Amino acid sequence: MRVAFVGLGTMGFPMAGHLVRAGFSTTAFNRTAATAARWAEEHSGRIAPSPAAAATEVDVVCLCVGADDDVREVVLGADGVLGALRPGAIIVDHTTTSAELAEEIAARTAEVGVGFVDAPVSGGEAGAMAGRLSIMCGGDPETIERARPVLAAYGATITRIGPVGSGQLTKMVNQILVAGAVEGAAEAINFAIAAGLDTDLVLSAVAGGAANSWYLANRGQTMVRDEFDFGFAVDWMRKDLRICLAEAGRRGIPLPMIELAERDLAAAQADGEGGLDTTVVIRQRRRATRPGGAGGEVSPAS
Amino acid sequence: MRVAFVGLGTMGFPMAGHLVRAGFSTTAFNRTAATAARWAEEHSGRIAPSPAAAATEVDVVCLCVGADDDVREVVLGADGVLGALRPGAIIVDHTTTSAELAEEIAARTAEVGVGFVDAPVSGGEAGAMAGRLSIMCGGDPETIERARPVLAAYGATITRIGPVGSGQLTKMVNQILVAGAVEGAAEAINFAIAAGLDTDLVLSAVAGGAANSWYLANRGQTMVRDEFDFGFAVDWMRKDLRICLAEAGRRGIPLPMIELAERDLAAAQADGEGGLDTTVVIRQRRRATRPGGAGGEVSPAS
Repeated sequence: MRVAFVGLGTMGFPMAGHLVRAGFSTTAFNRTAATAARWAEEHSGRIAPSPAAAATEVDVVCLCVGADDDVREVVLGADGVLGALRPGAIIVDHTTTSAELAEEIAARTAEVGVGFVDAPVSGGEAGAMAGRLSIMCGGDPETIERARPVLAAYGATITRIGPVGSGQLTKMVNQILVAGAVEGAAEAINFAIAAGLDTDLVLSAVAGGAANSWYLANRGQTMVRDEFDFGFAVDWMRKDLRICLAEAGRRGIPLPMIELAERDLAAAQADGEGGLDTTVVIRQRRRATRPGGAGGEVSPAS
Repeated sequence: MRVAFVGLGTMGFPMAGHLVRAGFSTTAFNRTAATAARWAEEHSGRIAPSPAAAATEVDVVCLCVGADDDVREVVLGADGVLGALRPGAIIVDHTTTSAELAEEIAARTAEVGVGFVDAPVSGGEAGAMAGRLSIMCGGDPETIERARPVLAAYGATITRIGPVGSGQLTKMVNQILVAGAVEGAAEAINFAIAAGLDTDLVLSAVAGGAANSWYLANRGQTMVRDEFDFGFAVDWMRKDLRICLAEAGRRGIPLPMIELAERDLAAAQADGEGGLDTTVVIRQRRRATRPGGAGGEVSPAS
């Protein structure tokens, strides 16, 4: 099977590499040519000068770009993949986008006999490197089954949730859960530090029970150490939560906790921290914590 | 070693039973005499007519009552344990209270040579039944070491965090984390249902990654099924979050997400749901979700 991969960012770079390793004839495109050249060198893959050139004569095109408008550009634009694809080919979009964008693209691809699957992922850079992503798919079952061997190159679990758009809606559910865990960890760890507790002891005491989460287990120590130069960037998380809020607004679904989380992320961006891991929002709590609060007198732990 | 246990509630009833099974000479007191009689029958334990009577000639008194005022009453009241204890005895308080209460009681016990440990627990009713609680201790190291064999009867991990009060502060950290996970799960699962997604598929797709938490793994399915007649009651969780907010207020620590969670719990109480599991707050989101929102037209998943 011949495959194209468009978008060699933090996630796409290793994902496209897994395609080569899995034996697929793989052609990649990336907007920044230097990154494409580095990918071709590292993975012995082929690169193309445009999305359309990458997609010529392939069976499946995978996309992993930035946001809704980037997907429109690489699919529907002048050099977009749709103009180059044969009927029967499939576009799999790993970008986290709105559900409406997925429906819009699916309608356009259907006009020319091309299949579409919205397939956002979770697992982060580490999951992409290890080829152990969780892939949440929306699309018709037959199209997803035909694409499955390609997705299996970097997906540990590949779940069809429902029709086009439902992969994106599931990613929104995922990000709402993540935001709750991050807000909880940020308030809890800032509280622990401000109360003068030994955070190593506190984290080990609470980690085994109902307070635990992936974020506490994997980011608790880095939050304590004020380390944020890795992980999932504030800029991306805010983009994702704004997608959640727009979708929720259309459907009349209240998300007050997500509104709070989105404000924290916006404040982090305003403080120049957009490129740091999303757990850096703990600094929004810390900055608002009164130095030398009255509590210094009322508790022996401080 | 002779032990007294005051407070045979959901947690205390099985905890005191573990003391008998571990071979400690155990005398229990409970305000509702019928519960005490049932405990004595089930666990072949001794019961006493007052906290003071239970504490006479014992080495360690464990408390697990409702809130700050209950602890004051059973320790310092007319029939309280402090009047009956010998110098060198130890009071271990498993109640979730303010850190100030712990300091207040410790100061009073120190006047008569009695030790004090604040030792709130996590692990819930299931952890108490299984004797697998996590116990977060504040107190001087020597006192905690002397009490440790007693705590080991129902504690899987027994951690000294720091001086008196730090057990309670750690429990506050625990509850802040729990509240974040519950708020996230409530907003995410309500969103998934309102968007028309297959919740079984969604939960399995997101459970393996960064969105996971103890609450998602252990309460996600019950939230979907609208089952709340078990677990950790809204009334208790709200009491705990109010303790967090009071402590944070004294110290100048911002907890906006906890303020939101506390409002949700208050609304659940107002709806007559105070006795249900804390995850019932998903209904606060559901009640605010617009039936037949415009999203019905814009997404094929609904």
